[in-house]
Amino acid sequence: MTGSTTDHMLTVTWSNSTGWGAPAIVPYAPLPLDPSATVLHYANECFEGMKAYRSKRTGKIRVFRPDLNAKRLNMSADRIALPSFDNDEFVALLCAFAAVEERWLAWSGNATMSDTDENDFLYLRPMMIGTTPRLGLSKPNDAMLLIIASKLPSWHSRPLRLLASSPEESVRAWPGGFGYAKVGANYGPTLKTQSHASSLGYDQVLWLFDADKRLVTEAGGANFFVVWRTEDGRVEFVTAPLEFGTVLDGVTRRSVMELVRERMPEISVSERHFSVDEIVAAVDSGRIIEAFACGTAFFIAPVGEIGISGRDVKIPLKVEGKSGEYARTARRWLEEIMYGEIEHAWGVEVN
Amino acid sequence: MTGSTTDHMLTVTWSNSTGWGAPAIVPYAPLPLDPSATVLHYANECFEGMKAYRSKRTGKIRVFRPDLNAKRLNMSADRIALPSFDNDEFVALLCAFAAVEERWLAWSGNATMSDTDENDFLYLRPMMIGTTPRLGLSKPNDAMLLIIASKLPSWHSRPLRLLASSPEESVRAWPGGFGYAKVGANYGPTLKTQSHASSLGYDQVLWLFDADKRLVTEAGGANFFVVWRTEDGRVEFVTAPLEFGTVLDGVTRRSVMELVRERMPEISVSERHFSVDEIVAAVDSGRIIEAFACGTAFFIAPVGEIGISGRDVKIPLKVEGKSGEYARTARRWLEEIMYGEIEHAWGVEVN
Repeated sequence: MTGSTTDHMLTVTWSNSTGWGAPAIVPYAPLPLDPSATVLHYANECFEGMKAYRSKRTGKIRVFRPDLNAKRLNMSADRIALPSFDNDEFVALLCAFAAVEERWLAWSGNATMSDTDENDFLYLRPMMIGTTPRLGLSKPNDAMLLIIASKLPSWHSRPLRLLASSPEESVRAWPGGFGYAKVGANYGPTLKTQSHASSLGYDQVLWLFDADKRLVTEAGGANFFVVWRTEDGRVEFVTAPLEFGTVLDGVTRRSVMELVRERMPEISVSERHFSVDEIVAAVDSGRIIEAFACGTAFFIAPVGEIGISGRDVKIPLKVEGKSGEYARTARRWLEEIMYGEIEHAWGVEVN
Repeated sequence: MTGSTTDHMLTVTWSNSTGWGAPAIVPYAPLPLDPSATVLHYANECFEGMKAYRSKRTGKIRVFRPDLNAKRLNMSADRIALPSFDNDEFVALLCAFAAVEERWLAWSGNATMSDTDENDFLYLRPMMIGTTPRLGLSKPNDAMLLIIASKLPSWHSRPLRLLASSPEESVRAWPGGFGYAKVGANYGPTLKTQSHASSLGYDQVLWLFDADKRLVTEAGGANFFVVWRTEDGRVEFVTAPLEFGTVLDGVTRRSVMELVRERMPEISVSERHFSVDEIVAAVDSGRIIEAFACGTAFFIAPVGEIGISGRDVKIPLKVEGKSGEYARTARRWLEEIMYGEIEHAWGVEVN
């Protein structure tokens, strides 16, 4: 995920005494930040990841479930001592910004754009930072909300290779912490373990929690699903639950679960604690069906292999050796909504 | 801890391709940071807290054990995917910067400055941030090391009132996490619990770990010591151990332990896990002697009360109702070194 930012940025400043100021969409430019600004010392920062798409039917710009991102950004801001805002106003600003940057989204002029990995999108990054110049540790009195955008390439080059972490050595999040919030403090600290995984040829870390139970939580900065046949023969989608506060309530995670429950009622969708050893057992007994990571940046990324306790466990990729069938289906379902191929309440068109 | 920054800042930039650039001491000014700089999204930031003092004998500027801060900043930088540097060069830069800002330290012109809470100091804040403009989560290719300074008032207004946290609800650090590093990610996330404690009239949170064992870790952003008489009659200084990686290896913490071990060999100094319930038992059985928080910003701050499970547990303050005797002694010992009243290897004079 590299890429370059677009021409503009949306900024709104906040102060404890006067509240939110007037939003402005201005040329993209450096922010003059006081060296003692709290964001640079105490990580008073949170963000969202979203994408803007161009409708394949109308050519209009669309966003996907922006209400969920608004709500989550508010929750993250609260967790990291930053101010709250009105969700609807945020969505209106987001749409206004996406409209200004629409030239970054290709438009073929007809509805025949191919359904491939080349689907175009613009990555949107809402963010909030604490700007009060003060070395004393306390809730900032000043903040800034920004929306910036970046033209990222699509991730989907090949199936992911994950490396299961050693929870004795490295833990991403813990109960009573902040793993459920999209705050900077959840990301920088993962880079050391991530670098180690990269140096061994893995794409992302599969974060385990609890040295005894070895519970699966997230894959890199994305949620993780495994699909297997249970011992009594049902097909089950399993992902880590939100109850410990160690897992992000991902928009893609939630959307996949909702669509599968609605459209494939014969399948069990379970949010529950599960061990990486259950994955090994499912592989060894032939019950494994597939696995995928999901998130806005990764979208739905099939997993082909997981390094677990020194063994590279192979996960089936039945569709051309590139994806599982359920991951492919879920991806298509979401793309239809994102790219406006069908009418759906989750697809919000920008006017 | 509020205050205003001084006139200058020291800056050194780093890039992955060319390494560290030439340091410069320049007028204090805003940093122009790209809105996609990694520090604003992924908390690639770490810092140190130090103080400069003026020698009561020679009038020269002094710093305290700067080698330990250099080493810890390097360790924190490594933990948060920022570059390493040469410890000795860092200390030289720090001393050069302190010399430039020496006018911020009062000089009475003689050796009779009073030994009171009014002892003057300049707070120094070395910091490092990741500046690469890139939304993809990876180790930054660019960074900046800064040293800024602030004229902070002394904390010592009155004994601290601490509120023991509920480890079911809120946990500062976790084994396998990063609680031992001075990274921003350890601070912003504590503000919500800190605000709650403040709203109830407490100064700082006494962070407990493990809902069953209720182990004491840190007090706010400082280390914590309790002094009691053991059941077999010895005087014991107790503080949380470093082994879980959940506690900062504080310079003041370490210095207090080293001085007590050297100068009061009859006292036991224990780095070990201990429960907040042991404090309650020591209070109830009359074995408690005193407690204090310690860190660079707080220095040695006597604790007068701890809110534990709905009860405000009183801690003795035998010296004028303001401090325990050991805290007062340790503070004097350290001040003698910091203010150059005695020759000691820990006091480094700036030329």
